[in-house]
Amino acid sequence: MNKPKILILGAGYGGMISATKIPKHLGANDASITLVNKHNYHYQATWLHEPAAGTLPADRARMLIKDVIDTNRVNFIEDTVTLIKKDENKVVLEKTGEVDYDYLIVALGFESATFGIKGLKERALTIEDLNSVRQIREHIEYQFSRYHNMETKEDHILNIVVGGGGFTGVEFLGELANRIPELCREYDIDRQQVRVVNVEGSPTILPMFDKDLVAYAIQRLEEKGVEFKCGHVIKECQEDGVIIGRRDSEETEKIKAGTIVWTGGVRGNHIVEDSGFEVVRGRVTVTEDLRVPGYDNIFIIGDCANVPNPETERPYPTTAQITIQEATYLSKNIKKALNGEPVEPFIFNDMGTVASLGHGDAIGIIFGKTKLKGTSAAAMKKIIDDRYLLKLGGVGLMLKKGKLNLLSK
Amino acid sequence: MNKPKILILGAGYGGMISATKIPKHLGANDASITLVNKHNYHYQATWLHEPAAGTLPADRARMLIKDVIDTNRVNFIEDTVTLIKKDENKVVLEKTGEVDYDYLIVALGFESATFGIKGLKERALTIEDLNSVRQIREHIEYQFSRYHNMETKEDHILNIVVGGGGFTGVEFLGELANRIPELCREYDIDRQQVRVVNVEGSPTILPMFDKDLVAYAIQRLEEKGVEFKCGHVIKECQEDGVIIGRRDSEETEKIKAGTIVWTGGVRGNHIVEDSGFEVVRGRVTVTEDLRVPGYDNIFIIGDCANVPNPETERPYPTTAQITIQEATYLSKNIKKALNGEPVEPFIFNDMGTVASLGHGDAIGIIFGKTKLKGTSAAAMKKIIDDRYLLKLGGVGLMLKKGKLNLLSK
Repeated sequence: MNKPKILILGAGYGGMISATKIPKHLGANDASITLVNKHNYHYQATWLHEPAAGTLPADRARMLIKDVIDTNRVNFIEDTVTLIKKDENKVVLEKTGEVDYDYLIVALGFESATFGIKGLKERALTIEDLNSVRQIREHIEYQFSRYHNMETKEDHILNIVVGGGGFTGVEFLGELANRIPELCREYDIDRQQVRVVNVEGSPTILPMFDKDLVAYAIQRLEEKGVEFKCGHVIKECQEDGVIIGRRDSEETEKIKAGTIVWTGGVRGNHIVEDSGFEVVRGRVTVTEDLRVPGYDNIFIIGDCANVPNPETERPYPTTAQITIQEATYLSKNIKKALNGEPVEPFIFNDMGTVASLGHGDAIGIIFGKTKLKGTSAAAMKKIIDDRYLLKLGGVGLMLKKGKLNLLSK
Repeated sequence: MNKPKILILGAGYGGMISATKIPKHLGANDASITLVNKHNYHYQATWLHEPAAGTLPADRARMLIKDVIDTNRVNFIEDTVTLIKKDENKVVLEKTGEVDYDYLIVALGFESATFGIKGLKERALTIEDLNSVRQIREHIEYQFSRYHNMETKEDHILNIVVGGGGFTGVEFLGELANRIPELCREYDIDRQQVRVVNVEGSPTILPMFDKDLVAYAIQRLEEKGVEFKCGHVIKECQEDGVIIGRRDSEETEKIKAGTIVWTGGVRGNHIVEDSGFEVVRGRVTVTEDLRVPGYDNIFIIGDCANVPNPETERPYPTTAQITIQEATYLSKNIKKALNGEPVEPFIFNDMGTVASLGHGDAIGIIFGKTKLKGTSAAAMKKIIDDRYLLKLGGVGLMLKKGKLNLLSK
């Protein structure tokens, strides 16, 4: 019995879809499949802005991996990847040591990119994984709980600066805008005492959306008390706030804050770079069938893969949507790949994008042209979230972990 | 209309019972009544160990003062007392300025006494009021949320040192013992990584209880992972823990901890001392009808009053029970006091004491002899808690804010 060994690194969107779909396209004797992940759970990375703000319990955004994968077909190892020895077909794990593979699927996730901004790594919290967002939530609540006990009130500890007005930043602002009034009631604090400030280097937030949708998002968030500093970058993070300014100007301004959350940039997992792959911001530019050039037995999907858009030749943004499609494509083609047969190239089918602005509100564009805003966009967002769960674990998982109130929860 | 002015300072147990009962013993034309409190809410000081540990939402332990007092009879001022000018019959309030009185009821609460222990005031949290316990809860949760995000894991940040094994300390330990396993599950932390250590200077905890009840309490709390360091005092509080040792020994030991909660001592409110009253640990030894010697128009009840036990001549411990009895006594006799008639002396009727050991468990002694432990004591504790609410605000308040599950909540 010399079954080829397929090793999947990471149980994010890409790894989980691969680990659940590949067994459906291969017989039990075609290959042995192993999934490695540093936690025993999978979480919804696109939901992280909610537990970060405290509008969703962190547990609602995760599930045990063993509850989702078919453990008769997939061997799960809870361990942390430290190195890929791509020329030896081995992966080094922190506790287990070395593991062999014949085919490797690298589905490791993203990391925050801080671009060397002074003090950012030390002082800013990031929306990165379940651990990091639980700390954001608790950090904010801790600041609120301290306020009335200070001998000299430092109003600024209640302020929250969010660096970055991209997808994650704006979705987090939407949740915060809903959460702050709750926290103010809970801790007897006047809403006017709390500033929530977004700092975005581009002239506007959410560059992927049309102007009128962006205008709607800004208006709705401003109504809920969010301040936008577009065209400004964080120049330095200090103990008690941030120094901001325009990119090409010497003039700066200090915004005092007790909480700084950085959503301004992501890059591929450092392990890929550490392992000697050629990367741009931690990502490998893969072939049209998602392999590493020169390494036919290594596939990269998700946040560590640069997949060029054939129309623009620039890489597609790394999103959950494209990752899920990559994993689905790979699963369908894995048999051919094992047999050394040629496969059709991967084609990304952009279904659209919806950005949440907090409970019951969102903006979105679907099927390349239909614009949505408000409750219809918010409903679409939930449908997208639940559709993934349906795909991953069937109706049962969708009912158990989904956001549509199909069952009373 | 020259009605005498009754001014009540503080809306704790003493002030609230006075403000609700005095109007029942006086006609509307007999006196004008004013209650001053720094918050617009009254809270259950004897419940504070629960929101401190996070086993009860802080809001469940408080109620708006205006929802309980009869605002047609009692004028409420939300302000902070800064000084009592006892020889001018005036009280100075932070925002309002000076307020006159003919009769003053000082029902200001306790403060933590730190006995000059180095670093304690700066680094230990205290179970003092709703603001302070909300911070304890959030502080502990913040430490748990930080743990997995530390580059170098500092296991000690999960440890909690509780200084003082008296009533408050032990009740807090009981709640913590229930809460820690929940937090461990929530933040993916092994229960074995968390130490909860009690440091008590006396040879044993809870000196007011019989040996066998104390032994039961220690056993139950130890089973839930609490460590006791009896006969040890905190000699110094440091950034990352406490230095403890026996009182008369040079030998010391360091216990590293991320949270230090001090319950080791209380004293009367500093305003009483600041106002020139003769005090022992912030408390005035009152006459047998609860007046300040030499000031017939000033009554002191609750945590700022030393009421001597006629049998031992030592003051009774200041508890909610004695405070409620003092306020009830005062309300019944207020008419005579206004008319300058002599009143019977205050007699404390000790109904017993029950200390909670966490959900469903407690020890107690009632009617001076009956010992209770386990579920019966826990049930008695809830009855005591609810009896106060019944007394304060009737059946409605008891059902709304009580602990017995008379209505589904």
